[in-house]
Amino acid sequence: MKKHNYSAGPCILAQEVFEKAAQAVLDYNNSGLSILEISHRSKDFVAIIEQARALVLELLKLDPKEYTALFLSGGASHQFMMVPYNLMQTSGKAAYLDSGTWANGAIKEAAFFGETVVVGSSKDQNYNYIPKGYTVPEAVDYFHCTSNNTIYGTQMKEFPAAKVPVVCDMSSDIFSRVLDFSKFDLIYAGAQKNLGPAGTTLVVIKNRILGKSTRAIPSILDYEKQIKAQSMYNTPAVFAIYTSLLTLQWLKKQGGIAAIEKINNQKAELLYHEIDRNPLFEGTVRPEDRSTMNATFLLRNMAHAPIFEALCEAAGISGIKGHRSVGGYRASMYNALPIASVLVLVAVMQELESKV
Amino acid sequence: MKKHNYSAGPCILAQEVFEKAAQAVLDYNNSGLSILEISHRSKDFVAIIEQARALVLELLKLDPKEYTALFLSGGASHQFMMVPYNLMQTSGKAAYLDSGTWANGAIKEAAFFGETVVVGSSKDQNYNYIPKGYTVPEAVDYFHCTSNNTIYGTQMKEFPAAKVPVVCDMSSDIFSRVLDFSKFDLIYAGAQKNLGPAGTTLVVIKNRILGKSTRAIPSILDYEKQIKAQSMYNTPAVFAIYTSLLTLQWLKKQGGIAAIEKINNQKAELLYHEIDRNPLFEGTVRPEDRSTMNATFLLRNMAHAPIFEALCEAAGISGIKGHRSVGGYRASMYNALPIASVLVLVAVMQELESKV
Repeated sequence: MKKHNYSAGPCILAQEVFEKAAQAVLDYNNSGLSILEISHRSKDFVAIIEQARALVLELLKLDPKEYTALFLSGGASHQFMMVPYNLMQTSGKAAYLDSGTWANGAIKEAAFFGETVVVGSSKDQNYNYIPKGYTVPEAVDYFHCTSNNTIYGTQMKEFPAAKVPVVCDMSSDIFSRVLDFSKFDLIYAGAQKNLGPAGTTLVVIKNRILGKSTRAIPSILDYEKQIKAQSMYNTPAVFAIYTSLLTLQWLKKQGGIAAIEKINNQKAELLYHEIDRNPLFEGTVRPEDRSTMNATFLLRNMAHAPIFEALCEAAGISGIKGHRSVGGYRASMYNALPIASVLVLVAVMQELESKV
Repeated sequence: MKKHNYSAGPCILAQEVFEKAAQAVLDYNNSGLSILEISHRSKDFVAIIEQARALVLELLKLDPKEYTALFLSGGASHQFMMVPYNLMQTSGKAAYLDSGTWANGAIKEAAFFGETVVVGSSKDQNYNYIPKGYTVPEAVDYFHCTSNNTIYGTQMKEFPAAKVPVVCDMSSDIFSRVLDFSKFDLIYAGAQKNLGPAGTTLVVIKNRILGKSTRAIPSILDYEKQIKAQSMYNTPAVFAIYTSLLTLQWLKKQGGIAAIEKINNQKAELLYHEIDRNPLFEGTVRPEDRSTMNATFLLRNMAHAPIFEALCEAAGISGIKGHRSVGGYRASMYNALPIASVLVLVAVMQELESKV
């Protein structure tokens, strides 16, 4: 039986993506070759990566003359290091918003390269809200924020005005909602939520912010060299990029980001409504900062946990255990999770209520 | 029709690996989940990566108390930078053997971190031999060499004595022949030849060489942090590592490295014998330095090229065009290429001889 997969990432992708990806592992496009054994310099793969890069900009409504999309390696954590390596001046400084574990990871890595200014933090309340009311200073090389906090279930609904380049880690909510993406100068996202399998990382860069640091950058870490090589400075993650293209094509077919946002809002409303209504449960996040991607919630009485978890398992619900930093449960509702799966979870929560 | 795939990389893997990998994309181990949607922290994936790491050391006959195997991101080119970042002292120096394009790439990146001493080079003859007769100095932080040169078709048959740590890029011949791997202190290899699909890189490290540099290393680039995190400092390339495990299991079932080496030698002898016998062809590499993995050869008369290439295509031979640095043809005969494919190529070379 196919599971209702609430995993926080790697996570569910569309069923048709799994089917096409599996077919390509056996034989790509009737070529007599597996997608795993074709050269990254082959006409077939060059077409794949170029389509994927173009479709990213099309879906984000970004001008390809101003922005470049790259598929790099190493995950978002790798970008924690590449961002300051490329954008921070020697003896420079950068502003960071501390909204959780991953934001913190980015701050720590930036400290290898220069001074970090933390303009706001919600650490005092175990990150159960998004810091607000801060100002982004002008005398920094860039401002960095995390749009969605997978672990804590919070999401930025607004982004600050800034006179410096704005860098955003959108790993866990890219392609899930309409934003004016042209307000951002560098967006990065590990593929393994709304884009594809683990193993590639999307980086979208406004070209003109580069080339301003005098720091010597090793070639493979240099965004300008990656752009010049058209995202093929060295052998890219062929299969992960192909599967990302399949997901981007699926998303376009759904009607793009605006269409998927509507469904994401419906899913989130269904689940948060039940969390608020059902006396057995409580949410962990201030309502105005709740994430549409990751809903974190607790049982008010932990004695109900074994029966709730048994009901979930019997219903085919998978990956709902909360992160150890928050405890309880976390339902990740990425783009590919069908509403039907949310209805099953809500039904299980109601069944629990009727039983205890 | 399944092709005879001579691609230099990404390249052929065993057919049973493609079949098992495709099945796992649909449903991993009857879990109701695709391998692409399971958490990297799940029991299933932790078992996969731990088996793969252990099997690497077992096949290389390395002591797990002395060595650690990691599956990192970014390809071998990423290791060109990580090796000096971790092993070169601040104001240190390292010795490099210049045996081709990739060795050169490694030398260039090391220069970002300190002084490089090139102990030998075969650039004078377009890298058609392996430099010999050099001495590895003692006053360097490490010695770096490239065991097999994919582009030029040369392979080191002997490795120098060295009193400093020996680092070897084995991207294109790891697991293909028996060596005393305990003579090496750090081995790295992009997966996409004898190990798995593009998207993960094997690094095998002798633990005790680490921790000697005073350089501040960003976390994700720090081998010690990667070892401490058991190769899961951040989300690894789940599918590429799973497919690598399948290949390692396949190799063990063939009888391990010693058994595959015999077959690799047979394949190389068959093809080089024909290159030397057939008056239409000539090899590009000094016979004693010929690679068993990548055979590079030319047509003596380029007027025969169209008919030779048409015969190859008709026979289902794919990926045989030489790299632009050498021209002509390159037949890559990695572990998974069957002898039957080599017999087909030899037959085509003989057919050409009979036709012109």
